[in-house]
Amino acid sequence: MSDNNNPLPLPSLPEWRNFVAATQQSAISFDRARIIDTPGLQLDISAQRHSPELTAAAQALLDARNFDAMRRHLLEGGIVNPSEKRAAWHSALRAAAPVGPINAERQRMNEFIRKADSERRWRNIVHIGIGGSDWGVRLAVGAFGYAGMWRQVRFVANIDGHAIEGGLAGLDLRDTLIVMASKSFTTAETLENGLRALERLRAAGVEDPYQHVVAITARPETARDWGIPASHVFRLWDWVGGRFSLWSSVSLTTALAINSDVVAGMLAGATAMDHHFANAPIEKNAPVQMALSGVVNRSVLGYGSLNIAPYDFRLAALVPYIQQLEMESLGKSVTLDGQPVGVPTGPAVWGMPGTDAQHTFFQWLHQGSDGAPVDFIVCQNADHQWRNHHESLLANCLAQREALLEGKSHSHAMMECLSAGMSHDEAEALALHRTHPGGRPSNLIVLPRLSPYALGSLLALYEHKIFVQGLIWGINPFDQWGVEYGKVLATGITRELNGDIPVDAAHDASTRHWIEQFRNDSAKR
Amino acid sequence: MSDNNNPLPLPSLPEWRNFVAATQQSAISFDRARIIDTPGLQLDISAQRHSPELTAAAQALLDARNFDAMRRHLLEGGIVNPSEKRAAWHSALRAAAPVGPINAERQRMNEFIRKADSERRWRNIVHIGIGGSDWGVRLAVGAFGYAGMWRQVRFVANIDGHAIEGGLAGLDLRDTLIVMASKSFTTAETLENGLRALERLRAAGVEDPYQHVVAITARPETARDWGIPASHVFRLWDWVGGRFSLWSSVSLTTALAINSDVVAGMLAGATAMDHHFANAPIEKNAPVQMALSGVVNRSVLGYGSLNIAPYDFRLAALVPYIQQLEMESLGKSVTLDGQPVGVPTGPAVWGMPGTDAQHTFFQWLHQGSDGAPVDFIVCQNADHQWRNHHESLLANCLAQREALLEGKSHSHAMMECLSAGMSHDEAEALALHRTHPGGRPSNLIVLPRLSPYALGSLLALYEHKIFVQGLIWGINPFDQWGVEYGKVLATGITRELNGDIPVDAAHDASTRHWIEQFRNDSAKR
Repeated sequence: MSDNNNPLPLPSLPEWRNFVAATQQSAISFDRARIIDTPGLQLDISAQRHSPELTAAAQALLDARNFDAMRRHLLEGGIVNPSEKRAAWHSALRAAAPVGPINAERQRMNEFIRKADSERRWRNIVHIGIGGSDWGVRLAVGAFGYAGMWRQVRFVANIDGHAIEGGLAGLDLRDTLIVMASKSFTTAETLENGLRALERLRAAGVEDPYQHVVAITARPETARDWGIPASHVFRLWDWVGGRFSLWSSVSLTTALAINSDVVAGMLAGATAMDHHFANAPIEKNAPVQMALSGVVNRSVLGYGSLNIAPYDFRLAALVPYIQQLEMESLGKSVTLDGQPVGVPTGPAVWGMPGTDAQHTFFQWLHQGSDGAPVDFIVCQNADHQWRNHHESLLANCLAQREALLEGKSHSHAMMECLSAGMSHDEAEALALHRTHPGGRPSNLIVLPRLSPYALGSLLALYEHKIFVQGLIWGINPFDQWGVEYGKVLATGITRELNGDIPVDAAHDASTRHWIEQFRNDSAKR
Repeated sequence: MSDNNNPLPLPSLPEWRNFVAATQQSAISFDRARIIDTPGLQLDISAQRHSPELTAAAQALLDARNFDAMRRHLLEGGIVNPSEKRAAWHSALRAAAPVGPINAERQRMNEFIRKADSERRWRNIVHIGIGGSDWGVRLAVGAFGYAGMWRQVRFVANIDGHAIEGGLAGLDLRDTLIVMASKSFTTAETLENGLRALERLRAAGVEDPYQHVVAITARPETARDWGIPASHVFRLWDWVGGRFSLWSSVSLTTALAINSDVVAGMLAGATAMDHHFANAPIEKNAPVQMALSGVVNRSVLGYGSLNIAPYDFRLAALVPYIQQLEMESLGKSVTLDGQPVGVPTGPAVWGMPGTDAQHTFFQWLHQGSDGAPVDFIVCQNADHQWRNHHESLLANCLAQREALLEGKSHSHAMMECLSAGMSHDEAEALALHRTHPGGRPSNLIVLPRLSPYALGSLLALYEHKIFVQGLIWGINPFDQWGVEYGKVLATGITRELNGDIPVDAAHDASTRHWIEQFRNDSAKR
């Protein structure tokens, strides 16, 4: 066993070599369904490789990575993010009986909402945040507000000025609340977009525009210095990573858009998943089993990407949410102490709701050269009245999963072509284009219904899966140094573009060309 | 040279082996910008591998694939889709002087629009279509209607009943036009959603609901049989693939939402790109150069995915549009005559507008194990008044591209840490987490402004790029057999779910389990 802050690269671990060998001798079983029950959802892992030897090797690998202790460390608020010397204690935000300051802040938020609702105030909400301060709220509002809301909600994230222009267009600003979410309260996009909103509020005749602004941040004093009244500043904590901030006061927008019960339900569902993760034995532990399949598919079988396929129109924003959660966490190639991991880590995560996805890129999943594992997500019950639509949705989900798993043989394709009346030669030519290799792994996640509780549970499932994958790979899933570098470079180029400083000769020729080009253009304005 | 319908698998071609060897000896040049001018945009390929030998090898490879003749064949409406015995003559739809029937149909469409506009009718449009009948219109309406439109436009694609529920919610149906786009007019999603719309129109007291419905289809008689009045049926042709149908009357919705000039501008831009593709020498031919880099990155360097990064909030729907165009076209592993291609074909295509993407998954692009080539797309000029926003957007785009290209060395990272005041030990530990490998290829596509002309030109650029990649790989980019199989399976499972037929014992255990589960559930309703 290696020290937790100095994990040995996987290829040097005997437990890893056993895991690889066991994977290679395992197979997907067509005869036995393997389904894990959790409080909020069911996870079907039947279409992943399995064998008793693989189960034993997985247990040994987790032991070698000190899984039990590290899981406890995570859930008890220990320092699991050593490069930034922080905990990742977002689970504390959703505990049934949160500690004092968390509870106090939640009460303040609820009081703000009660007041707004009782006064029928804030007919429009413009939520300004980016990345982790954006996707979670978009997801919740999309999931539960898809058929219209009393309040109109807009999201503005991008520094592109068309975003804030479109976000404010046509609103009665006298009854508009601006919610600014930024952990550091230094995020360039959020502060600039906030300034544009203030300018428009003023131009619309609002006397004290700061009274129309709310901030959610881990730096309350910075937000107050920026001008936001103290009663409008809601805090989160240093130990809440941006990509976990959905569980904090960032959900103010969700509560105003839908109601506070949605937020409470999501918190309860996530907590239930925390307990499941903490207590379920490895073989019946949904996040752990998902993580193990993820490592098998990525690091042993070599799949470079993971497709997320929610068969639910309301979960469109789940894709970017999981993209951020997983890729910012696992898009690293060095271990905690800076050594190369030695095996491929986090995959590219992408996707789209089915059935749209079937008409967009499922061709590639079925017959492309690489394929990708798929996470199918579906609700057993719908919240509308059209039984045939829901049956068709469920059937499409099961059918695509089955097609990816079973494939279609050449003889099957021949038979199809012949029974469609083709000549033998025609059938022979076309059948080659109609075969599917099959054998593609997938998960099926079934929610009883798209309740806040089920959604909260689903998000926590992915969080813990990612934690376990990070632990196995020996990387730090809680930092994001790759995000910082571009910011520094952009600051320099911005100054070159606006003429503050000359164009640095150290840029490559193409970058220099475009800086000159865009700068001249700016000068002409 | 191999016969065009029986292309030799690449590994057996000496021209391919030379191309691979030349690629391996080529490099990205930091000293010379390579920029291709086209009528609608500029393509910067400086951050792709290059050498005189590679240029020569590329020319020889294209010759071996009979490129000149095949390009002519495509643009003249020859049968380039042999498995379906069809042309792919979408370029004819956008020709400056289109032939009779195309022109006649366009006139009919424009007349419909003129009438609707002069009567100030159809305050709401619900566009019902999926895949190729959906993404193009979404893209155009998002690009030019981002700051609000006189008409309210909704899109409904998914069979999920929540989609049509949300799409119709809150509309005054007496002034709502339903646009149904389906090439075959048999698409299950589109027909079912259309029926729900008709039911709601009737329930809202509309006397003749079919007068509120328009169809765009290659089967006008089927649409008329379905009940749509002949004057409301606009046709496209068999030789227009669904993923190219944006250039047909499917753009009726765009014209009603924005105006007919937008549609005309896009057609003109695409035609200009067709001419460029037809006439520019290989080295200055933008689609050809993009295709060659695409093949280099995918089939020689082994990149499994391609990231699309439009640095423009208005181009959010460009990502699924290109995803469909490229993955449905190139997600195949057999040649035209059914032999294995022998090298990896079409990559997974995914992405998100920058700067959102920087806060979502750029961490992975910078420091993940695989990385991915990126297509950066940016407009030199904005359509808003905030110079600092646009400078910052441009700077971020250039900075991310530069960071991916140049990387950050360990000594650079050390220096950064030390100058931030860290001790030598701290700096040493952290610097390992702050290095970037660099060397990641990218394209930079610069539009002068987001005009319809530039957007049309951009879309045709990708179309032709994909055609050339298909030609090199020897595959048919115009069929999509992988989409058909799932449809057949879904039809069977739907009948099992609604109890029409017993559950087929041939399903795997997991599929059987869920069919039983969902079927019981249905029975209870």
